[in-house]
Amino acid sequence: MTKSPEHEHPVKAFGWAARDQSGHLSPFKFSRRATGDKDVTFKVLYCGICHSDLHSIKNEWGATKYPLVPGHEFVGEVTEVGSKVQKFKVGDKVGVGCLVGSCHSCDDCAKDLENYCLEAVGTYNSTYYDGTPTHGGYSNIMVVNEHFVVHIPNNLPLDAAAPLLCAGITTYSPLKYFGFDKPGMHIGVVGLGGLGHVAVKFAKAFGVMVTVISTSPNKKSEALEHLGADSFLVSRDQDQMRAAVGTLHGIIDTVSAVHPLLPLISLLKSHGKLVMVGAPDRPLELPVMPLLMGRKLVAGSCIGGMKETQEMVDFAAKHKIAADIEVIPMDYVNTAMERLAKADVRYRFVIDVGNTLKAA
Amino acid sequence: MTKSPEHEHPVKAFGWAARDQSGHLSPFKFSRRATGDKDVTFKVLYCGICHSDLHSIKNEWGATKYPLVPGHEFVGEVTEVGSKVQKFKVGDKVGVGCLVGSCHSCDDCAKDLENYCLEAVGTYNSTYYDGTPTHGGYSNIMVVNEHFVVHIPNNLPLDAAAPLLCAGITTYSPLKYFGFDKPGMHIGVVGLGGLGHVAVKFAKAFGVMVTVISTSPNKKSEALEHLGADSFLVSRDQDQMRAAVGTLHGIIDTVSAVHPLLPLISLLKSHGKLVMVGAPDRPLELPVMPLLMGRKLVAGSCIGGMKETQEMVDFAAKHKIAADIEVIPMDYVNTAMERLAKADVRYRFVIDVGNTLKAA
Repeated sequence: MTKSPEHEHPVKAFGWAARDQSGHLSPFKFSRRATGDKDVTFKVLYCGICHSDLHSIKNEWGATKYPLVPGHEFVGEVTEVGSKVQKFKVGDKVGVGCLVGSCHSCDDCAKDLENYCLEAVGTYNSTYYDGTPTHGGYSNIMVVNEHFVVHIPNNLPLDAAAPLLCAGITTYSPLKYFGFDKPGMHIGVVGLGGLGHVAVKFAKAFGVMVTVISTSPNKKSEALEHLGADSFLVSRDQDQMRAAVGTLHGIIDTVSAVHPLLPLISLLKSHGKLVMVGAPDRPLELPVMPLLMGRKLVAGSCIGGMKETQEMVDFAAKHKIAADIEVIPMDYVNTAMERLAKADVRYRFVIDVGNTLKAA
Repeated sequence: MTKSPEHEHPVKAFGWAARDQSGHLSPFKFSRRATGDKDVTFKVLYCGICHSDLHSIKNEWGATKYPLVPGHEFVGEVTEVGSKVQKFKVGDKVGVGCLVGSCHSCDDCAKDLENYCLEAVGTYNSTYYDGTPTHGGYSNIMVVNEHFVVHIPNNLPLDAAAPLLCAGITTYSPLKYFGFDKPGMHIGVVGLGGLGHVAVKFAKAFGVMVTVISTSPNKKSEALEHLGADSFLVSRDQDQMRAAVGTLHGIIDTVSAVHPLLPLISLLKSHGKLVMVGAPDRPLELPVMPLLMGRKLVAGSCIGGMKETQEMVDFAAKHKIAADIEVIPMDYVNTAMERLAKADVRYRFVIDVGNTLKAA
């Protein structure tokens, strides 16, 4: 007999969940497992709203299991640790991203790339090893194996650090893996949203030149003056785009809407790399000859492994990088989702879970 | 006043040319420049027929200038060298591939990647620095700057070596650049034609496992028994393809017809690379999520630089690699083109220019 979410586990938990594909979020009682030997339990303080949360609550990727408690970029304070936990103690400031489990035995796990483990368990909308559904950070308490927890350095503001756990690592990892972190390079960042604005900050911290490419001319001053980008291209302005042909070593494309690749491939120098971190729900058109003529490539990248996630957070702390956020109370979340769907946020909503999530 | 092809230059030359987009080839008198200080002049002995020749004579890429003498993989014997030529002497066996010029000053030229130089001059259907059209190896004599000439080692049969200058370098270069040359790797080769069969030979010489992927089940025994591939997949057999999901580190895709990429991307392990060396004339459908989930990439690669071309020919000589060819007389070329269009050749036609090209 299946137990109800409220009684599956011994630890009472409380959050906001979507119940159907309307995506409407509302208060939800569920439960978390007791702190295991290798588990860290923490009180959730802040949780960012990722665009994936919006896709998931509305079942836009077709795989949502309801009820669903979203949230995969959140931070909090440790309240209990298991007897075998080595890296954390009560009172530590910690964060959790998109993963809460992996097989620990495949080639990818062996290389600290748990994010590419085929058995990886997502922070929400997955099934944990005990057969129960995983639930994310729009909730008061989290219990998680310490392997999937990172330390948040003291000098990072907790609220603005939360989005680093998804938006941060999603952009930091490909900047490193594809070699866009070398001074002297010139890279493009397509789309200036939650991912894009953090990509610009990391790239500038690596010492590379950054061109922001956006459909919105009105993001120019923000990109140049506030985020420190070196130049700005309006992707619909054919003269601007033509003048920039062959100037970029690489591009991080954060746009998840269907969009043409040829203009972006054309911006690349020979051997340039176009890296997609957004996932359009339909195939894109790939012109092959332009790839051949310059030995260019189109790649994908998905978050990052736990070791690199800690490295990224430490790098962010050292370089004083955090997300630009709008902090909201829990009961504003449905309005926030509507605004997010219209890209009406600079650049990430973060829910003040610790102060505003009230038990019913 | 423009001179006729026969009188542009002082050296009388003779070949076969296409005159219009019927693609029909027929005898053609033209001229070559006198041997310049840095030029090598050689008697053409053998010239391979590349699929690009077929595209070009029929103007299928829309850029053909008639009359056109095709041929960009040919070998011969040096008859004269210029006063400043350092690497060649009369009597040397030499080869020319797809390039006869480049700027020598851009980043790519500085890295011995003349093939990606934006000012590169093609062996045929391009305009040389003196303003005259370039003509290829379906001709009795060639005059070319020594930079674009390679030595053909004595132990390579000249006829079977000719296709190395295009088909060989087109596959060797990406095998090296994308790291498919490391023992322990398992790569796929899509399409078993002129490019594919040489790709299999190079990959086996590098010590990697090779799976041939083809639409034609009847190529299986040839792939396994004759070419030494380790396994064979019929791309239309969904059971076979499903069983091979996630097994390959990389793929060299030689198919220039429009074809689906998703089944090939699915064959790749995480971080796998699908490298296109054929150029479909319409965009392909690129599903992005499968790239993201495994940090996979789709790339293009186009021939190789001159330094690497010499390295490739030397490697081929050392490992006794050459193309499998059908040697034909010059006056069979139109029939050969018809057969090539139907993929009716194992695996490359080579014209015996030296013995069969007769002046009219």
